[in-house]
Amino acid sequence: MLVFHRDQIAEVIRLDENLVKSIEQAFASLATKKIELPPIMRIDIPEHNGEVDIKSAYVQGEDSFAVKISSGFFNNPEIGLPSSGGMMVLLSAKTGTPQAVLSDHGLLTDLRTAAAGAVSAKYGSRKNSRIAGIIGTGAQARLQLEALTLIRPIETVYVYGRSTEKAEVYKEDIERSLGLHVVICEHPEAVAEFSDILVTTTPAVSPLVKGKWLKPGVHITAMGSDAEHKKELDNSVLERADVIFCDVLDQSLRLGELRGAENHILEKTMELGQVITNQQQGRTHESQITLCDLTGTGIQDTAIARHVYPLLLSKEELKNERS
Amino acid sequence: MLVFHRDQIAEVIRLDENLVKSIEQAFASLATKKIELPPIMRIDIPEHNGEVDIKSAYVQGEDSFAVKISSGFFNNPEIGLPSSGGMMVLLSAKTGTPQAVLSDHGLLTDLRTAAAGAVSAKYGSRKNSRIAGIIGTGAQARLQLEALTLIRPIETVYVYGRSTEKAEVYKEDIERSLGLHVVICEHPEAVAEFSDILVTTTPAVSPLVKGKWLKPGVHITAMGSDAEHKKELDNSVLERADVIFCDVLDQSLRLGELRGAENHILEKTMELGQVITNQQQGRTHESQITLCDLTGTGIQDTAIARHVYPLLLSKEELKNERS
Repeated sequence: MLVFHRDQIAEVIRLDENLVKSIEQAFASLATKKIELPPIMRIDIPEHNGEVDIKSAYVQGEDSFAVKISSGFFNNPEIGLPSSGGMMVLLSAKTGTPQAVLSDHGLLTDLRTAAAGAVSAKYGSRKNSRIAGIIGTGAQARLQLEALTLIRPIETVYVYGRSTEKAEVYKEDIERSLGLHVVICEHPEAVAEFSDILVTTTPAVSPLVKGKWLKPGVHITAMGSDAEHKKELDNSVLERADVIFCDVLDQSLRLGELRGAENHILEKTMELGQVITNQQQGRTHESQITLCDLTGTGIQDTAIARHVYPLLLSKEELKNERS
Repeated sequence: MLVFHRDQIAEVIRLDENLVKSIEQAFASLATKKIELPPIMRIDIPEHNGEVDIKSAYVQGEDSFAVKISSGFFNNPEIGLPSSGGMMVLLSAKTGTPQAVLSDHGLLTDLRTAAAGAVSAKYGSRKNSRIAGIIGTGAQARLQLEALTLIRPIETVYVYGRSTEKAEVYKEDIERSLGLHVVICEHPEAVAEFSDILVTTTPAVSPLVKGKWLKPGVHITAMGSDAEHKKELDNSVLERADVIFCDVLDQSLRLGELRGAENHILEKTMELGQVITNQQQGRTHESQITLCDLTGTGIQDTAIARHVYPLLLSKEELKNERS
């Protein structure tokens, strides 16, 4: 069993088209292959304001799969630690033997989540989408935008965050790292009004975005809600959307924006994998409003662990050859 | 995050009274404390005759807990690998940070399962139990017996296994390692007939032991059944038992000997932790027949991981001091 630490993983992995392809294939396999996708295991530790989630997924025929242990401990910043962390274990599907521990501290989760945003935009957004709207100013607000630039010719970013200070830092970071023009908005409405692609990346527990604000033709990726109490989009967004995708329907119905959705909403809802594999038709017209709800699935963890493992092995071999 | 391998773990851990105490406290905490004990996560890989189980448990107030990934791949022996394997991760309950990876290849599972057998005997069997009956000749057939010797003055062992050859090896092993007299039986009935404590350790899918064979005063530990299709005891055993314990009731009802048990059986059933903490009364008379059904719970994994971790750290410190 090999053990790889975050810096080793960071050295070999890139948020690039290959990674997006791996994640896209993972979603496609949900629609075409036999998958073992057990419900998320969750351990709550309320006395320390913490939770640990365990996810796994196995795609029949593949020679390995991952088990991910991820944590969110929201008092950690008080003692100088990041609130989220985690690790993955890659296991042989032929023998059950652990092949590698990926002590990534949540890096792979961040990247596979961003890559899913790219897949969402690839299948939902208009090809000429130039304006990205980002709600939130955290790690995913950065990575989701970076992922969008792999897929669409993004030029301008409208951003909203509760903290103006953080929004300023975000603007600086993005203008420097991606060379995009960033406009800070004082209200989510202004972001929604301009966006060709709108990405919500917050842990909001009450809706931030209303349906009437949306521009015709917009594609929305909602990636913040992944628990029973979270919600970023007002129900009017679901009403106004012409087509809705989600990563895993029953999970979205429990943990995502589709919680409590009525039948007329579900009638226009499909899984992303079905769109990728042409089993369902996504956007059919430039002026349609499309929405993709991402709650995060073990299939992405298995995909990124399998994606990074050979990169880590090559690096290791190269190092051994040189020494 | 520290990584410990099987040989390091084997060097510091003992199947001794301290370990039994740790496991006993774990069962007690099930009856007295607030516990997070999510259902087992299971991934089946039928094309390789394999399965992976993930267990976890957190006892409120403790500063760490374990996540265990254990595997059974039943084609492995064909390629010279053991069929069962696994590892544990010990996480801080205060920050979610992984403290240690215990790459034990199932060693800790073997030992915590055996230690549970000792706890079962401690609370179920008569103090003067001298004759142990063992059904099965595998690793647990050895370890369960060793665990019994910590609790009761065992002198003689009656053993039954499907393979006479393996039973012969078992007899040799036990006579050499534990200095007990071992009698090989050609039928489980002969084992049951003589036993003060009877332990069933097989993956049987049809019952091996009948109620009418049992000696008054016997205590039975059934630890083999841990899945929907397994069963070691005929229903007549449950009928004849005066008192029944189990580790976790709802798990035993799904995966253990209590599957399909009727109300009059459940009326005499209690959890081991309730007996340990005097919330329920176990054996009240020498001639009663008692039964304990063990399906295995994440609380034992957390207990043994927390038990071995300081032992590993002390060893590590000792090594550092010397170097």
